Amino acid sequence: MSPTAPASTSLRVWYDLTVAAGEDPAQKALDLALEQTVELPADLVAAEVLERAAGRVEEVAEGGPGRFRAAVAFPAEVWEGADAGTLLALLFGNASLQRGVRVAAVDWPPGLLQRPDLGPRCGIAGVRSACGVAARRPLLATALKPLGTPAADLARQAGLFARGGIDLIKDDHGLADPPGARFAERLARCQEAVAEANRQTGGSSLYVPHLTGPPAVLAERLAAARAAGCRGVLIEPLGRGLDTLGWIGDAGLFALAHPALTGAFFGPDHGIAPGVLLGQILRLAGADGVIYPHAGGRFAFSLEDCAAVENALRAPFGGSGAWRPAFPVPAGGLDLARLPGLLDRLGPDTILLIGGSLYREPDPVESSRRLAALLREWTW
Amino acid sequence: MSPTAPASTSLRVWYDLTVAAGEDPAQKALDLALEQTVELPADLVAAEVLERAAGRVEEVAEGGPGRFRAAVAFPAEVWEGADAGTLLALLFGNASLQRGVRVAAVDWPPGLLQRPDLGPRCGIAGVRSACGVAARRPLLATALKPLGTPAADLARQAGLFARGGIDLIKDDHGLADPPGARFAERLARCQEAVAEANRQTGGSSLYVPHLTGPPAVLAERLAAARAAGCRGVLIEPLGRGLDTLGWIGDAGLFALAHPALTGAFFGPDHGIAPGVLLGQILRLAGADGVIYPHAGGRFAFSLEDCAAVENALRAPFGGSGAWRPAFPVPAGGLDLARLPGLLDRLGPDTILLIGGSLYREPDPVESSRRLAALLREWTW
Repeated sequence: MSPTAPASTSLRVWYDLTVAAGEDPAQKALDLALEQTVELPADLVAAEVLERAAGRVEEVAEGGPGRFRAAVAFPAEVWEGADAGTLLALLFGNASLQRGVRVAAVDWPPGLLQRPDLGPRCGIAGVRSACGVAARRPLLATALKPLGTPAADLARQAGLFARGGIDLIKDDHGLADPPGARFAERLARCQEAVAEANRQTGGSSLYVPHLTGPPAVLAERLAAARAAGCRGVLIEPLGRGLDTLGWIGDAGLFALAHPALTGAFFGPDHGIAPGVLLGQILRLAGADGVIYPHAGGRFAFSLEDCAAVENALRAPFGGSGAWRPAFPVPAGGLDLARLPGLLDRLGPDTILLIGGSLYREPDPVESSRRLAALLREWTW
Repeated sequence: MSPTAPASTSLRVWYDLTVAAGEDPAQKALDLALEQTVELPADLVAAEVLERAAGRVEEVAEGGPGRFRAAVAFPAEVWEGADAGTLLALLFGNASLQRGVRVAAVDWPPGLLQRPDLGPRCGIAGVRSACGVAARRPLLATALKPLGTPAADLARQAGLFARGGIDLIKDDHGLADPPGARFAERLARCQEAVAEANRQTGGSSLYVPHLTGPPAVLAERLAAARAAGCRGVLIEPLGRGLDTLGWIGDAGLFALAHPALTGAFFGPDHGIAPGVLLGQILRLAGADGVIYPHAGGRFAFSLEDCAAVENALRAPFGGSGAWRPAFPVPAGGLDLARLPGLLDRLGPDTILLIGGSLYREPDPVESSRRLAALLREWTW
């Protein structure tokens, strides 16, 4: 076999480069390809090491005044067997400290797409099954809030939502381990309140606790959630480590990813495209569902950003054995009045996360019931 | 005690807000204070919960056209007992998904500064002691590179650096678990090569491996590094989880933090000031040394950014029992010719990380020796 990796074994990253006056785009692309791999000028690296490990600029094309798109191919040596954290650093680790570098798209090689230790462990089908939902319909989720509420009151609220037939009742992401609603007490109370409601209604709502804490505590809490009967948990992959997502899946629970901190990467000229970070990277890291701020809510996401995230989470990648599809979980101030249009656009493979809007309704049980019925009956 | 938290028990964050035409700065500050805590409009939150948990805008002052600085105080309910990941999300989690929000400064409450589970476990004194350096002088570090080099060759290189008297010989951060230099083989070979050099020279150089992998693998590798006799490890806190830093310290090793991905947060109008993220937050999370791109190298850091990071890592915080100081580790293309000026500015509580410049020298042992001698003899 030739030491030159054929194109199909390369991981190709498409970078948008913004070039300052006097800066040479070809040089900027080459510096980037070296910075993300060997971290030395080419003249200090042996030829066979450059061949084996250095990023290779495949093309640089002008896209507008001072804007260029560069394709950089990374050989197997730098991504084979790599965990999600290492792959994210390969794409943008040191590059983050430069200026005017944005990851626009990635071509993932078959060698990554087929790895059983990457991608969602449950995926859309697994989460549906955990929720006891056989029909191909959107799932309905809500958040327990606000932070500052005692655990007993959060549990009471969880019970009401379960009685209303909401599929997934998750902790608000601000709920870590606050004095008024410690994780252990919250887990026990909320899980019991939802189980009690299920016994009364014959439903199968799930309580989804938020996992936080340093590594040892995180592992204890995951074990506690599992022992309490939870089927999935919420986690912030940028705060806790990208690879906690797959680790949760390996423990037999589904992982909902929260987008806290990810917005730091969404600069117009510097960062990572939302579809790549929230879609492809969180999916490869093992998220079974990814929460993202839907357009028209209280965050600065466009419809185009949303569509890119949704597509990256659901699109088939590679052949058989490739990453399972994951649920898009639109959130961030969804307006109940706009729900019909949203449902038409989003389709059935969606988890609708309705938080604040439900808290505005006078009767949460009744409002939840109406929403749940709407999702059950919607046709496309 | 009044339910209103006195000012000294609040965590105060100073945000720079960039306000679009028609946007009200006071409203933007209030929305931010609620978004980072209760995640509901104030009219949907009970008064006692607002009092206990919501962020409170203390002031909003104009700082220029369209620019405002807002002070937001967060009550104990939202930070007491919180791990570093939760604190970072409190400062900027959902705010990252907005536009024009930059964390400029933080006043940490005594209740956080005194917590034994935060802050460096070894600190500057502990790392010096691990290196067997009694004198108050800068430590000298270098990186094993490039990625793509077989483990045996990296080990040979490590032995040369150790013979030259370099205190800390760390993996390049691109070295995760590549096929040509798997972690286990690299650890065994590099550690042995450095130990052998120490036996020959009577020196006490340390090999500092880079820890990567999903949580279970990360724990195995930390245990392996410890068993092999390593005294510290390198980690990327944004890829692996902020709280892996303190977890490494709790295992009795020092933690060097790599800045991969952190640059995503350094937008001029949106993000976190470098001194806060690389300095205060990584120090509170438990970094004993923080690598950062020094001004004048190949990254876009100003001298002012550097000084802010250095000050935040070394400055005394709070009283006795407060976070230990941590080493600034300037890197990113330090030029040997500019070393005297750098040493004068940086002072003795510094780890100088000289990577690429050493690889340019014809004789790495001799060059390392000259550098080590320079640091031993420098006086301030």
